[in-house]
Amino acid sequence: MLKDYARPDDGLDKESRKAETKRLQKLLTAQQVTIREAKLPVVVLVEGWAASGKGRLINLLISEIDPRFSGVFCGEARTVDAHRYPFLYPYFCALPEDGKFLFMDAGWMEAAVRERCTKEIGEDMFRRRIESVNRFERQLRDNGYLVLKFFVNISKDEQRSRQDELKSDSDTSWRVSEYDEYQNDHYTRFRDAYDEFMEETGGIFPWHVLDGTKFGKLSYDAYRLLTETVEAGVAAGRYHGKAFDEYFPMHETPRLEDVDLSVRMDRDEYDKELKELQDRISELHNRIYRKRIPVVVCYEGWDAAGKGGNIRRLAYPLDPRGFDTFPIASPEPHELARHYLWRFWRRIPRTGHVAIFDRTWSGRVMVERIEGFCTEDDWKRAYNEINEFESELHDWGAVILKFWIHIDQETQLQRFNDRQNEPSKQWKITEEDWRNREKWPLYEEAVSEMLEKTSTEFAPWHIIESNDKLYARIKTLRIVVDAFERAIKERDD
Amino acid sequence: MLKDYARPDDGLDKESRKAETKRLQKLLTAQQVTIREAKLPVVVLVEGWAASGKGRLINLLISEIDPRFSGVFCGEARTVDAHRYPFLYPYFCALPEDGKFLFMDAGWMEAAVRERCTKEIGEDMFRRRIESVNRFERQLRDNGYLVLKFFVNISKDEQRSRQDELKSDSDTSWRVSEYDEYQNDHYTRFRDAYDEFMEETGGIFPWHVLDGTKFGKLSYDAYRLLTETVEAGVAAGRYHGKAFDEYFPMHETPRLEDVDLSVRMDRDEYDKELKELQDRISELHNRIYRKRIPVVVCYEGWDAAGKGGNIRRLAYPLDPRGFDTFPIASPEPHELARHYLWRFWRRIPRTGHVAIFDRTWSGRVMVERIEGFCTEDDWKRAYNEINEFESELHDWGAVILKFWIHIDQETQLQRFNDRQNEPSKQWKITEEDWRNREKWPLYEEAVSEMLEKTSTEFAPWHIIESNDKLYARIKTLRIVVDAFERAIKERDD
Repeated sequence: MLKDYARPDDGLDKESRKAETKRLQKLLTAQQVTIREAKLPVVVLVEGWAASGKGRLINLLISEIDPRFSGVFCGEARTVDAHRYPFLYPYFCALPEDGKFLFMDAGWMEAAVRERCTKEIGEDMFRRRIESVNRFERQLRDNGYLVLKFFVNISKDEQRSRQDELKSDSDTSWRVSEYDEYQNDHYTRFRDAYDEFMEETGGIFPWHVLDGTKFGKLSYDAYRLLTETVEAGVAAGRYHGKAFDEYFPMHETPRLEDVDLSVRMDRDEYDKELKELQDRISELHNRIYRKRIPVVVCYEGWDAAGKGGNIRRLAYPLDPRGFDTFPIASPEPHELARHYLWRFWRRIPRTGHVAIFDRTWSGRVMVERIEGFCTEDDWKRAYNEINEFESELHDWGAVILKFWIHIDQETQLQRFNDRQNEPSKQWKITEEDWRNREKWPLYEEAVSEMLEKTSTEFAPWHIIESNDKLYARIKTLRIVVDAFERAIKERDD
Repeated sequence: MLKDYARPDDGLDKESRKAETKRLQKLLTAQQVTIREAKLPVVVLVEGWAASGKGRLINLLISEIDPRFSGVFCGEARTVDAHRYPFLYPYFCALPEDGKFLFMDAGWMEAAVRERCTKEIGEDMFRRRIESVNRFERQLRDNGYLVLKFFVNISKDEQRSRQDELKSDSDTSWRVSEYDEYQNDHYTRFRDAYDEFMEETGGIFPWHVLDGTKFGKLSYDAYRLLTETVEAGVAAGRYHGKAFDEYFPMHETPRLEDVDLSVRMDRDEYDKELKELQDRISELHNRIYRKRIPVVVCYEGWDAAGKGGNIRRLAYPLDPRGFDTFPIASPEPHELARHYLWRFWRRIPRTGHVAIFDRTWSGRVMVERIEGFCTEDDWKRAYNEINEFESELHDWGAVILKFWIHIDQETQLQRFNDRQNEPSKQWKITEEDWRNREKWPLYEEAVSEMLEKTSTEFAPWHIIESNDKLYARIKTLRIVVDAFERAIKERDD
């Protein structure tokens, strides 16, 4: 606890500490090769008081690491647009690739404590931030990340005198922000918030409080802990978390075999209602935009189920300034080398924007499961990770719409044959589609499990009967209109 | 000219135009496959008056294209941070991959005219924007992009009445910005600026003025031009521009064979001066940051020349909140599928920040030339493209520092052997390094040509003698200090 913090004494004199630091520095240089070979991603979070020397410490730590193997994230520098994104967004987006170091100059702790102590958020929201952080850190651990967390501590007087010194020189005075001074003025409030945060978030990766009074000691301690942690992490090998069932309120989604695929809509009715719904969506999109409600629309479905046409009908009435469509293909190397949700986090819309995903993160429990692109632990754990991800989006205020575009095997066969026989459609059909078709029973099992395990109250799956594409499009747009209207009404109340 | 614009009559009645539009829509759907097969990237720039229906037009154009093959860029939506980056930055960053469409809802024309007509910039700067745009468009053409440019025209009265209608409804009134009204109030000024811009930028890709009064006619015309352009583009095949010599003021850089590599520095002198220089860089970095001067530092050099250690000495005194190091490896698939400068444009620092590149865009005229990763036209053209790129950065106010870290063949051999024999350094040496070594004469020729052709007055190459790494580091840091001091002084004057 910072409250009862006593400065530790390691019994080393200055000279031997210096020599020891040099040795550890060399060790770290060697470890960069080890972690690269072990494909271990390492996150070093350096939190602490303003003016405690976090930046200087990070610069020293990276000074002997090749820039090819390390990156630096600055909590402060990346906040231009931060309030338009979910709390965890910048941290997820910053995750390093396998085999690399990421050093963070303040991160999720500072962001939460700052909001709390400047009273932007209340105690309830602070608790929710803590919960988010615990889930985030567990996901990191389970997906093989090594996370080392420092808090650099200095006393109120020490902080004040450092701030005074910085302010006395016109070249450095800008470094002391209003917030930094506020922190010093309310030192006790911040200390208690840091304490509370550390106490509640030490379960996955422990906190290490370092004494920032003397830089020599600070850097020696940091080197020691870092090299020890890397050594232990490499020895233990990359961790794969087991499946873990957290409680989420679930939504009852029909079973695939109970879905009635015979539903139809005639062309005249379709044309009329399509126009009405699109006009309505266009109006509502204006309000969504103005009220800064973020919207995430997910499309999954069988090959040839009609996702593309369905998406186009939804996109047409949207203002292009306010939406993006993300077609999701196989991950590229830099995406594969990170937490599988990374590439989706990076595509989260800003508040007021709509993101349409043509295939989604649920690929983890479908194609990746069936094709063996991840381990059994990985995909079994993913149901919970997906629910956590969507719950973050929901808590942030997002409307989440998930559509499973459904057809039966005969309809798929007919559409495949149509594509094969119609020159203008042949690009739509590949050998892989035929191979996937043979795995229909495997996919059916995976899809059923996905529908069952990731249909939460805040992000339920909607099964869209699409043997008749017209019916499917209208049903989808109706659900969109309904969700938009409810979200707008909630904000009005 | 908009000034003398007469609405064209195509002699079609409403019904046949509608039928024709439907046919062209189908044709475009087929063309998406054609351009994908031809690996042709297509940029459709839709400029025009506020409220002229640009967004609606784009939505119609994309409505029958698969989202996997098209993207939308909104000039307006991406401007949060725009003033912190060079003028062309957002457009370069938005470039589509080979085989895909990008639709732009306002782009470089609107940005320049807006700045000009709101008097943010004067006539001189406006001319420079035009010059930048012409270079940009030529680079796009030479690198195989197809660009189609529309201007959607409406009269002053038409614009006013549309704005009034939007403003009359609380759901749409936010769509009429202050700027939009300003545009209507100063319609003639804007019209003249659009005219001037179009007149000066029609040389590479022509402008097409479309009548926006009736949406039916507008969309028909757009479909017609788009499908014709794609057809012609596919028939002509991907274009590879020839080398082109633009005049840039050149800096005399010594020839490699004249460099005296025997220069040395002793350890004591080095330690002392290193500390002084680093302290000075730390101070200057504060001012660079406050004065919002962007800095781009480029490192190139022989394998084992000591780039990494040199970079670390420079990075150490920099505030991590204000710099990034970018190690440049082989391009990933999504990078290869775009203009080769794309991945570097994306890494341009914000004003006040320092970007250090460990290898750079000059790879085009070295490794890509020697290994045949691009055509001869490509690398021969690249000297000029590189100068243009750096000239954009310079005009924007960037300090550009380019270091060639130089050693001789014997020193390289010795360092390779050291690496091979020292277990902690073996990761630094690969088979490829030995293979590259055999190509020394080829590289020497390429490097010499690069030094000769891309050493401009605004971005000269500095040859850093690095047989003695200590000497090399000090020489580099001195150049950095000198450049920082000059840039700060210029801003003070």
